[in-house]
Amino acid sequence: MLKTPKVGTLRTIGMGPGDPELLTLKAARLIVMTPVIAYFAKRGRVGHARSIADQLLSEEAIELRFEYPFTTELSVDDPRYLADMGSFYEDCAGRVASYLDAGQDVALLCEGDPFFYGSSMYVFDRLRADYPHETVPGITGMSGCWTAADLPIAHGDDILCVLPGTLDEDRLTERLQACDAAVIMKVGRNLPKIQRALRRAGLEDRATYVERGTQADQRVMPMTGMEGETAPYFSMVLVQGRQRPR
Amino acid sequence: MLKTPKVGTLRTIGMGPGDPELLTLKAARLIVMTPVIAYFAKRGRVGHARSIADQLLSEEAIELRFEYPFTTELSVDDPRYLADMGSFYEDCAGRVASYLDAGQDVALLCEGDPFFYGSSMYVFDRLRADYPHETVPGITGMSGCWTAADLPIAHGDDILCVLPGTLDEDRLTERLQACDAAVIMKVGRNLPKIQRALRRAGLEDRATYVERGTQADQRVMPMTGMEGETAPYFSMVLVQGRQRPR
Ligand SMILES: C[S@@+](CC[C@H](N)C(=O)[O-])C[C@H]1O[C@@H](n2cnc3c(N)ncnc32)[C@H](O)[C@@H]1O
Ligand SMILES: C[S@@+](CC[C@H](N)C(=O)[O-])C[C@H]1O[C@@H](n2cnc3c(N)ncnc32)[C@H](O)[C@@H]1O
Repeated sequence: MLKTPKVGTLRTIGMGPGDPELLTLKAARLIVMTPVIAYFAKRGRVGHARSIADQLLSEEAIELRFEYPFTTELSVDDPRYLADMGSFYEDCAGRVASYLDAGQDVALLCEGDPFFYGSSMYVFDRLRADYPHETVPGITGMSGCWTAADLPIAHGDDILCVLPGTLDEDRLTERLQACDAAVIMKVGRNLPKIQRALRRAGLEDRATYVERGTQADQRVMPMTGMEGETAPYFSMVLVQGRQRPR
Repeated sequence: MLKTPKVGTLRTIGMGPGDPELLTLKAARLIVMTPVIAYFAKRGRVGHARSIADQLLSEEAIELRFEYPFTTELSVDDPRYLADMGSFYEDCAGRVASYLDAGQDVALLCEGDPFFYGSSMYVFDRLRADYPHETVPGITGMSGCWTAADLPIAHGDDILCVLPGTLDEDRLTERLQACDAAVIMKVGRNLPKIQRALRRAGLEDRATYVERGTQADQRVMPMTGMEGETAPYFSMVLVQGRQRPR
C-alpha cells in the first residue's frame, strides 16, 4: 500500500505593527519552528514583515520573497492594477503550494493582523480549501498607533469606524460624520483628501496623525500640524471617541 | 538635600482574547518583572485577565483584585450605575496610586487591547496625568474571534464598523446598513435585539456568532443557528466585508 504523502500546513502569521516585542508568544514559536518563511516586500526593500522577524530567523530557513510588481501604486480601480495584482498573488500562491505539496510547512508573515486588510489574505484565500492551515492573529497597526499616541480610542457606547483612505472625499466625509471614533488607514498620497474630509466633518481638531507606530522612526502629531506635510504608506489618522471616562 | 522619592510606573497591559500564547513578548516580560499585579474580576470568579496571566505570576507577586460592584449589569444609562461605577473606578485608582506613591510599579492587566473599550481605561485616565505610564497593546477580542472563525473580515476598500450591542435597535440597524464589514461587541443579553437588527439590515445570513474566541470552550456558529440561544458576556457577532480577493 502506498503511503499518502503528507502535505504541509500553511501558517499565516500576524507580525504586529513593527516593534518585534509586540509579536505574540505563539507567532514567535511558530516562526522558529517553520522551515519555509514567505513574505511580501517592495522592490529594493527588506520587507517590513521580514524585518520584524529578523531576530527569529535561522540561517537554515528557506525564504520566499514576494516582490510587489509596482513601486508606485496604481489606482485600485485601474483594471491593469487588478489584473497584475491577481496574477502576482496567483504566482505567490503557486510558490507556497509547491512547498506544501512537498510536505513542508510554510509560514506566511503578515504585517499587523492577517485577516484585517492584510495582503496575505490574497494568498490564504487561494490555498485555504486545499491545505491544512492555521492563522495567528497579530496586534493591528491601529492598536499599535493609538497606544503609541497614548490615545484611548473608544469607550462604552462609542461606534468606531475603520475607513480606508482610498475612499472618495464625499464618502469619507459622510462616514466620518456618522461615527464617534474613527481610524483612517492607507494615508500616503491620500493625505490631502483626508485632510479636506476631516475639515468638512468638523473633526480636524480632534484628529491625530501617526506614522510608523511602534517603530524606531515613529511620528505622532496633531492633524492640524500636517499642513503641507507628506505621509508614507505606514501612516494613519485617529479620531478619539466622544465618551468620557466615568 | 532631600532625595525626591521615585514614584512607580503604571503599566497597562493588553492580555489578548484568552489564549495565553496570544500574549505579546513585551506583555509577558513586563508581567514577570512587575511586583504588583492589578486586575478586574466579577464576584466569585478568578478574573479573566488574571487567568490568562496565571503561568507568569510568581508567588511573591502582590495581587490587587478589583471586584465589580454588580454581578448582573444595570443599564449603562441608569444614573445609579454611572455613580456606582464612578466611585468603584475611583477606589481602584486610589489603590493603584498608593503603590505607585510608594515607588512600586503596578501592572494593570486588561482583556484584549486596553485602549479599545477596555475598563482599565477608567483607571488609566484617572492616573495618567500624575504618574509615569506605559501601555502595551493586546490582540483585540475581535482579532481573536475572526481568526478563530477562519473569517478574513475586511479587504481593500471595505469599511469596518465596530458597534456596541448596547445601542438601540434602530441605531444598530441603520449603522449595519452603512458599513461593509461589522463587529458587534457586548452581545450577552442584547442578543435578541441584535438578531432583529441584523434581520432588518438583511445581514443575518452573512453573520457569524463567536463565543469565548481562542479560549478552551470557544463556540463559533452561523447567526441563523442562534434562534432561541443565549449568549454570555464574552461573545460577539461578525459580518464579513464585501470585497472579494483579487
Ligand atoms: C494593507 S493595510 C494592512 C493592515 C494590517 N494587516 C494591520 O492589521 O494593521 C496597510 C495599512 O495599515 C496601516 N498600518 C499598519 N501598521 C502601521 C503602523 N505601524 N503605523 C502606521 N500605520 C500602520 C497603514 O495605514 C497602512 O496603509
Ligand atoms: C469591555 S469590552 C473589552 C474589549 C477588549 N478590550 C478588546 O480589546 O477586545 C468586552 C467585550 O469584548 C468582546 N470580547 C473580548 N474578548 C472576547 C473573546 N475572546 N470572545 C468573544 N468576545 C470577546 C465581547 O463582545 C465583550 O462583551
